Amino acid sequence: MRALGARARAAAQAVREAPGEQRSAALAAIADALAAMQDDILSSNSADVKAAQARALTPAFIDRLTLTPARFEAMVAGVRTIAALPDPVGAVTASWTGPQGLAFSRVRTPIGVIGIIFESRPNVAADAGALSLRAGNCVILRGGSDSVRSVAAIGEALRRGLARAGLPADAIQIVPSPDRAAVGMMLAGLYGAIDVIVPRGGKSLVARVQDEARVPVFAHLDGVCHTYVHAGADPEKAVAVTVNAKMRRVSVCGATETLLIDRAAAPALLPRIAAALREAGCTLRGDEDARAIVAMDAASEEDWGAEYLDAILSVRIVQGLEEAIAHIARYGSAHTDAIITEDDAAADAFLKRVDSAIVLHNASTQFADGGEFGFGGEIGIATGRLHARGPVGAEQLTIFKYVVRGDGTVRP
Amino acid sequence: MRALGARARAAAQAVREAPGEQRSAALAAIADALAAMQDDILSSNSADVKAAQARALTPAFIDRLTLTPARFEAMVAGVRTIAALPDPVGAVTASWTGPQGLAFSRVRTPIGVIGIIFESRPNVAADAGALSLRAGNCVILRGGSDSVRSVAAIGEALRRGLARAGLPADAIQIVPSPDRAAVGMMLAGLYGAIDVIVPRGGKSLVARVQDEARVPVFAHLDGVCHTYVHAGADPEKAVAVTVNAKMRRVSVCGATETLLIDRAAAPALLPRIAAALREAGCTLRGDEDARAIVAMDAASEEDWGAEYLDAILSVRIVQGLEEAIAHIARYGSAHTDAIITEDDAAADAFLKRVDSAIVLHNASTQFADGGEFGFGGEIGIATGRLHARGPVGAEQLTIFKYVVRGDGTVRP
Repeated sequence: MRALGARARAAAQAVREAPGEQRSAALAAIADALAAMQDDILSSNSADVKAAQARALTPAFIDRLTLTPARFEAMVAGVRTIAALPDPVGAVTASWTGPQGLAFSRVRTPIGVIGIIFESRPNVAADAGALSLRAGNCVILRGGSDSVRSVAAIGEALRRGLARAGLPADAIQIVPSPDRAAVGMMLAGLYGAIDVIVPRGGKSLVARVQDEARVPVFAHLDGVCHTYVHAGADPEKAVAVTVNAKMRRVSVCGATETLLIDRAAAPALLPRIAAALREAGCTLRGDEDARAIVAMDAASEEDWGAEYLDAILSVRIVQGLEEAIAHIARYGSAHTDAIITEDDAAADAFLKRVDSAIVLHNASTQFADGGEFGFGGEIGIATGRLHARGPVGAEQLTIFKYVVRGDGTVRP
Repeated sequence: MRALGARARAAAQAVREAPGEQRSAALAAIADALAAMQDDILSSNSADVKAAQARALTPAFIDRLTLTPARFEAMVAGVRTIAALPDPVGAVTASWTGPQGLAFSRVRTPIGVIGIIFESRPNVAADAGALSLRAGNCVILRGGSDSVRSVAAIGEALRRGLARAGLPADAIQIVPSPDRAAVGMMLAGLYGAIDVIVPRGGKSLVARVQDEARVPVFAHLDGVCHTYVHAGADPEKAVAVTVNAKMRRVSVCGATETLLIDRAAAPALLPRIAAALREAGCTLRGDEDARAIVAMDAASEEDWGAEYLDAILSVRIVQGLEEAIAHIARYGSAHTDAIITEDDAAADAFLKRVDSAIVLHNASTQFADGGEFGFGGEIGIATGRLHARGPVGAEQLTIFKYVVRGDGTVRP
C-alpha cells in the first residue's frame, strides 16, 4: 500500500503539469478503452454477480453490483461527458494589485491525490476516477470485495486509456486486495499520499469514514431534506413540487423526507397534496395537527430525523417561517431544503437563513445533483463545512495557489 | 467544555444571520472596549509576565508574552482595520442558469465555529477573534497557561464589544482553565461544535494539532522557502530581492531559507549576492559548487530541509529550471517560492510548475502575508490542500451554499 501511495504522488506531478487537452485526450481514450473492453468487463461482472448469488447476498445488493449493458453504456457516456468538460486547472479565479504594486492572481490547481472508497457499484471506479482526473488529480480506488473482478477489469481500461494519452497509468490505481487494513491505511492518509477521501456507498460506510478518517472527507451522512409549503404558496406548484420532491425517486439523497406546511395553508392545501402523494404510492406520517386535517399514521419524534429513502413522508404543521426554519435547523442534515411560496420576502428569508448546502425556492429538492447543476457530473454531495459543499464537481476537486508578479519588488 | 461548545453553536446562528453592518459595529465596539480596558489588560499582562519571570521562562518567551503599549495599540488598530473590511458573508461568487432553467447562485456563508489554539502571544485572541467574526464565525479561543490573565482580560473586552452591538457575547469564548484536556477535546471537534482548528504558535504546537486533530486544520508546519536566481536574472534585482527575502525579518515563515542559483549565473552573481548578504549579517552554507565560487561553510543534507528562522542561508548551484523545480519539490514545504529572472518563459514555467501555496516572480518571499496580499489581515498561512491555501483572510474563513430559484420547477 505504501508503494501504491508513492506511485500516486509521483504520477500527480505529471498529471498536474499536463496540458488540459492531454487530460481530455486521456478521458476520451479511457471511454474508448472501456468500450473496447466491454465483453471483458461484463464477463468479469457476471463472475462477481454469480459469486454474490452463491453467497446469497440481498437482491438489492446484487442489483447494485450488476452492470447491465444499459448501465455499461451510461458509464461510458458519463466518461465522454467528463472528457468534454472544460479543464478547470490553471483557471484564474481572481486577480488584483497589492499594496506594493505586485500583481496577484489566484489560480486553480489540482488537489493532488483523491482516495475513493466505494462499495458494490463497479461503475463508481470509472465515474469517480474520470471526474478526479478531469480536475488534474490522481486517484486511489478501493472497491468492495464483491466487485473485485469488475473493478479490476474497469481499472485495466482506465490505465490503458491513460497510457494511450501519454499520462502515467498510476494516475488511477486500484487497491488490489480488498482487505480491511487497506481501508484503514487510506483513512489515515496512506503515509501522506492521500489528500482527501470520498466514500461512495451506504450510510455505514460513510459513518465509518467520517469517524475514522484522519484526512478531510467529502461526503454526506444523511439527506434529511425538507419541502416547506409557505402560506403564500401557489397550490399547483405546491402539489407538483412536493410530489416530485418525494416521489420522483425515493432512494436518492435529495428526496424530501419531511413536508412542513403552514397552518394557514394546510386546511386547503394538505388534502390536495396528500391525495396526489398517495396516488403516487406514498405513505404519510403526520403530527397531530396534520392528522386533524387528513387521516394518516402518527409521526413519532424519530420520524423528524429519519431519512426514509422510501415512499414515506413525514408531515408537520408549522406556525410560519420561523418555526419552519427552526425545525430544519434542529432535524435537518444541512443537505437540501426548499420553500414553496409566491411571497418573495419569505423566500429570501428562507434562502438566507436556512444553513444547508442547497436551498431552493419553488423547485424540487431532487435537483440536488451535480448534473442538474450543470457540473457535468459529481463525485458526491458534501454536507461538511470546508472546501466543498453541495454537489462536488470538477471545480470543487481543485484548490488554488497564488501567483505573484513583481519587478524586483522587496517588502519594506 | 461541552456546554461551551453548545453555546458557540447557539451563537453561530445569530452571528451568521446578523447583517454585515452589525458585525462591523461589533468589531468597532470591540476595538473601543479594548482601548477602554487598556489599563486592566496591561496590568493583567504585567502579572502574567511577572509569573513567567518567576518561573524563569526564556527571554524570547517573555518577549512574546509581553504586551507593550505599542503592541497594544497595534492590536487595537488591527481590529479597527478588520472592522473596516468588506463583510464577505452573502457575497454571490457565481451565478448561472441550469439545464432545466433554474437560476443558481453560489453565496458565501460563514464556516461556523473556529477553534483557535495559541501559545504565548495574548494579542492573538483579539486578532484571530476579530478576523473570524468578520467572516460571520464564532470562536473558541484557548491560550497558553502563561498568558491566562492577559487573555481573560482581552476576552472580557471582546465580549463587551459584542454585547454592545447586540450580538451574543458567546460568539467569542475563552476556554477558562488552560488544562491539556481542553486542547484534546477541541482537536476532537468538541462534540461536533468546532468546524476547523487554527493553531497559532511554534512548530511543536502545530505538529501536535496536525497529528491529533479530527477536524480540519488551517496551518503550516514549515516555511522552507526558496529564492531561485535563474540564469536570466537581472543582477540588481537578484541581489536586492535575495537580501530582502532572507534578511528583512529572519524569523517569519516567508523568509527564504535556501538560495538556488543557476550554474551559468553563479560565477558572476553569487559573489555579489553573498557579499550583500554577509554585509546584512547572514551566514552562508553552500554545496561544493557554491563553495568553489565563494568560501562558505559546507551545507549538509539536513540543510536543504531546514527552516532556520535565523540569519543563515543554504546555497545550492543548479543546472537550470528543471533542477530548481525538482529541488523545491523534494525539500520545500509548499509554502512560498520565488524565481528571479527577466526570461518570461522561464518565469511562467516556474510559476506553473512549482506546487506551492505562493509562487512569485521577481519579488521577495517575505510578501507571504495576508496584509501584503491586501486581505487586511490573516489568521495564518496554510499549506494544506483543502479549502484555504496561503494567507487565510476573511474570505477564506467562509464557505458557500447554493441558492436555487425556480417557478414550480420539477426534475424530469
